[in-house]
Amino acid sequence: MPDTIRLAAIDTLLAVLVTLFMGGRVALLRGSLKIEAPAITGHPSFERAHRTHINTVENLILFVPLLWIATYFYGGQVPFWIGLVWVVSRALYAWGYSQNNVQLRGPGAGLGFLALFALLIIGAIGILFPPPPAA
Amino acid sequence: MPDTIRLAAIDTLLAVLVTLFMGGRVALLRGSLKIEAPAITGHPSFERAHRTHINTVENLILFVPLLWIATYFYGGQVPFWIGLVWVVSRALYAWGYSQNNVQLRGPGAGLGFLALFALLIIGAIGILFPPPPAA
Amino acid sequence: MPDTIRLAAIDTLLAVLVTLFMGGRVALLRGSLKIEAPAITGHPSFERAHRTHINTVENLILFVPLLWIATYFYGGQVPFWIGLVWVVSRALYAWGYSQNNVQLRGPGAGLGFLALFALLIIGAIGILFPPPPAA
Repeated sequence: MPDTIRLAAIDTLLAVLVTLFMGGRVALLRGSLKIEAPAITGHPSFERAHRTHINTVENLILFVPLLWIATYFYGGQVPFWIGLVWVVSRALYAWGYSQNNVQLRGPGAGLGFLALFALLIIGAIGILFPPPPAA
Repeated sequence: MPDTIRLAAIDTLLAVLVTLFMGGRVALLRGSLKIEAPAITGHPSFERAHRTHINTVENLILFVPLLWIATYFYGGQVPFWIGLVWVVSRALYAWGYSQNNVQLRGPGAGLGFLALFALLIIGAIGILFPPPPAA
Repeated sequence: MPDTIRLAAIDTLLAVLVTLFMGGRVALLRGSLKIEAPAITGHPSFERAHRTHINTVENLILFVPLLWIATYFYGGQVPFWIGLVWVVSRALYAWGYSQNNVQLRGPGAGLGFLALFALLIIGAIGILFPPPPAA
């Protein structure tokens, strides 16, 4: 199996793990702050954790297809490293959003958007300019 | 690389772009209407933009697997064209939902559902009735 | 086409169907309980149905990549059966959450989490310990 596929799978598992972690944090806060389901409001810390999770889900559904398209059509190790930046950006976003100042979610959100955009660009390049067939 | 794979990738990038655009609109309205995070209510235009984005995310996670299953198991250019209809349907949905009459989101939502359903049917056909192996 | 791919595709279609069903239930309740868009609150039954759908979407974006990574890197029929457990767990979750006692969503949520975790583990095993190349 090609190494690029394996690298994309590693990024994907890490992205799943970081999202699972956020979802788990929402569940824990729901319990400790006694916010009974199906409510999604009731305490600022819970609301920020919930938005952190949902926003990451919204981005994950963009990240996974972009990562695999970039891996398949562009190839090499570049998609893997960009994917790793995205995973780190979401952890940074979650940390920032968990602080009392919601502006601190900005850097992580911005970095994550840049990573998505980079994957989109190299994916599009790979689709539009395929390598010549091997001789 | 087979052309059908490339066509599915093009649909996927377009679907990602249309979703990114909706997410960007939510961020812009949050700024201009001064709705501080993590609030997701506070102004009808913001709430409609937010629901447009979330609903598209909910559909995108169905669309991407259905598109690729239809491409892999059914093949040909039909999945690509249905996928394009889906992308257009979401733009139509977003336009409709941005109007003052929320009923206008109906046509885009309906068309998008038909596209998903068509992908589901041809995907299931491709899985259940695989082509005979090449002689 | 290998049978494992077909089995993963069957799980994926079932997962899409169960999610579509939940989304349809939200739309029907929105109509019958007269909760006009873009509101997502207004009646406990609607709110529970809405949370059921959103929570399943949040999990589906984790499930699909994990299922396919486990299928590709671990192989065999095990990923398919775990995937089927996940699909059943979401139906159980939806049933539980539709009852008047929200605690009843627990068993389905727990079973679904175990299925995700099992796919994550065997996927990671498959990535880290690839089979030796055929002689």
